[in-house]
Amino acid sequence: MPLTNAQRLWERHEALARIGATGRGGVCRLALTAEDTAGRALLLSWASRLGLIAEMDPIGNLFLRRIGREPDTAPVWTGSHLDTQPTGGKYDGIYGVLAGLEVLESFAERGVVTRRPIELVVWTDEEGVRFQPTTMGSAVHAGAVRLEEALGARDADGVTAEDALAAQMAALGGVARRRLGSAAHAYVEAHIEQGPVLEAERRVIGAVTGIQGLRQFAIALAGEEAHAGTTPASRRKDAFVAAHRIVAALHRLVEDATGTTRFTIGRFQAAPGSPNTVPGRVEFTIDLRHPDLGRLERLTQGIADICSREAAPCTAAVTPLLDSTPVAFDPAMVERVRAAARRLGHEPLDILSGATHDAKFMAGLCPTAMIFIPCRGGVSHNESEAVEPEHLAAGAEVLAEVLRELAEE
Amino acid sequence: MPLTNAQRLWERHEALARIGATGRGGVCRLALTAEDTAGRALLLSWASRLGLIAEMDPIGNLFLRRIGREPDTAPVWTGSHLDTQPTGGKYDGIYGVLAGLEVLESFAERGVVTRRPIELVVWTDEEGVRFQPTTMGSAVHAGAVRLEEALGARDADGVTAEDALAAQMAALGGVARRRLGSAAHAYVEAHIEQGPVLEAERRVIGAVTGIQGLRQFAIALAGEEAHAGTTPASRRKDAFVAAHRIVAALHRLVEDATGTTRFTIGRFQAAPGSPNTVPGRVEFTIDLRHPDLGRLERLTQGIADICSREAAPCTAAVTPLLDSTPVAFDPAMVERVRAAARRLGHEPLDILSGATHDAKFMAGLCPTAMIFIPCRGGVSHNESEAVEPEHLAAGAEVLAEVLRELAEE
Repeated sequence: MPLTNAQRLWERHEALARIGATGRGGVCRLALTAEDTAGRALLLSWASRLGLIAEMDPIGNLFLRRIGREPDTAPVWTGSHLDTQPTGGKYDGIYGVLAGLEVLESFAERGVVTRRPIELVVWTDEEGVRFQPTTMGSAVHAGAVRLEEALGARDADGVTAEDALAAQMAALGGVARRRLGSAAHAYVEAHIEQGPVLEAERRVIGAVTGIQGLRQFAIALAGEEAHAGTTPASRRKDAFVAAHRIVAALHRLVEDATGTTRFTIGRFQAAPGSPNTVPGRVEFTIDLRHPDLGRLERLTQGIADICSREAAPCTAAVTPLLDSTPVAFDPAMVERVRAAARRLGHEPLDILSGATHDAKFMAGLCPTAMIFIPCRGGVSHNESEAVEPEHLAAGAEVLAEVLRELAEE
Repeated sequence: MPLTNAQRLWERHEALARIGATGRGGVCRLALTAEDTAGRALLLSWASRLGLIAEMDPIGNLFLRRIGREPDTAPVWTGSHLDTQPTGGKYDGIYGVLAGLEVLESFAERGVVTRRPIELVVWTDEEGVRFQPTTMGSAVHAGAVRLEEALGARDADGVTAEDALAAQMAALGGVARRRLGSAAHAYVEAHIEQGPVLEAERRVIGAVTGIQGLRQFAIALAGEEAHAGTTPASRRKDAFVAAHRIVAALHRLVEDATGTTRFTIGRFQAAPGSPNTVPGRVEFTIDLRHPDLGRLERLTQGIADICSREAAPCTAAVTPLLDSTPVAFDPAMVERVRAAARRLGHEPLDILSGATHDAKFMAGLCPTAMIFIPCRGGVSHNESEAVEPEHLAAGAEVLAEVLRELAEE
């Protein structure tokens, strides 16, 4: 008999999805908007019935505390985020929060009292849409971004995160304040995979081994515009042809029989963009991901080498856009997830997170793990994001097992 | 001692370039605008001093007639266009008109009277910028485009070519009307090369053997958007990767050791254009040119084959945008240009026109030739278009030789 209540967990996702509903099955609940505040208020109403103690830190991270037998021990944390993409789904982030709540509620119902307190965390502005950077709340918590800098971020209308957060805190009224950077014994985050691997492998539980590193680059090629009819190939400085040659070499560079390296050219544009003019300029982006820092660095060098070697008779400039170091989760924590899944009859799949998560910053602070469940077709950041109700429940069951173990340590 | 007046020819280019001058060395004198009318009025003022008889046909092609000893014989025609690109140069088209005028003026000064009349033609709307299609005047003259269709063309403000032409005819007042489609004995058009070949080969005169065929295609690839971080390569339908594979195959298809085939991808765009999203859609254009129709048709088939063969797991659609048949000029006419150039001390270079010209439509009506002179760096359709004064003169000398011969036949 399952510990958690699958029906309640499903219904809470539906209830939260009505706040900021787009009318096309999706949700728009950007960080620190009125919708985000309403979503947190609904969560607080559920939490108050369980007697959870609510606190917010100076960047708006929300903590819901269930005390343990030894209230002064470092708490075990679980959670994720409630903010969404502009055309986001019902599960990205939300699941990690509601699965945590479900575990706490089922513990209450069954009289489970743990040694350590358990805190459900709702991180501020994970999506980084209204205010940059992404994972703002967990980055500030971990000291990776300064509080003043984050609060000074402005949205497209010029409103600061500081003012938006003050409005939310005022609206939520009774929530107590907590200092920045409180410590946790361990952190476990449940999340939808946002990729197709679990579904394709017909697995219900992913034991996340880490978050791959990410580097992004902008490549700009400069050649010379020329008349497409009158200029022989031998006399052209065709920026498109040079870019194509560079791309071919890049594809060879990133070849990887293991399928680990992720290489995407997502933006590519030739200018001036007239069918009968040889392009004088091409700009494209590279999104490169790999769990191994050394490999990322060798590939970065390879990109630079290829761009300087293959550009002639054009010239190429490489500009780094983003550099996010790979994270490996604590092996003992990953093993806890695997073992709990097996006990519950789910053969787990080791999986590396392609997307980043708040767990990335927690991994530097305490033993950290993530639990993935499948999402339909691997689709996420999309209004058609969908999951199976039994997968929501299975992930919550695994989370309950892991949290109980950690909270007894 | 040269027949023509190099200084006068140069100064007339400078004088015309003041009408519609952009202030950056270029000219904006779009067809049937007030600037175009002013340019034609200046030409008419020069022509009237020579006693040339001006007539306009119903599409606005302007004819300036110098009578011969036998006024009823079919006239020899020379000319080009006075309209420019929005950021055009001083020589594209203008040179063919002013070189013709210079020949007629020098004949007058030296008392040269030919058997046949010679007519200087100024074709309407060669550039096709304000009103489409390009080479509108010569296309209507040749019956390739219906008069009513051309007159019904509207500019970006909704003004019809008919109304714009009526305004020009009213402004030019005294010019007589001529019926559409009058016949010529032969047609010779002088033009800047608009490409780099003559300059690179250090030749002054190009004997144009024809105008290559042109086909344009739009290629649209449909794949599937996916998260760049979470989606392994094996599960992607990456429209950019498919497009890149197609481009690689196209480059092999069009390989041509002779340098004759012109292949340009001028527009290329990946959508949605986010660095961390696998592109679900790519659109690009192909501009393909070759003098041989059979080769164009084989390459067209090759493009279709490659797009259907290489697109998987995406799909590709090929849409023809433009099909302009290759034109070969009358070999005897080309030989006249070569022979005249040699007599004047210029070893001619056989050259195929990469761009289209009004001569394309004349070639279907009467023996036709073109004379090319170099332009600096091959640059044209550009405000920095530049030529050497002695090249303007050399081309006019060759034109004078050819016109005198033809007019004596």
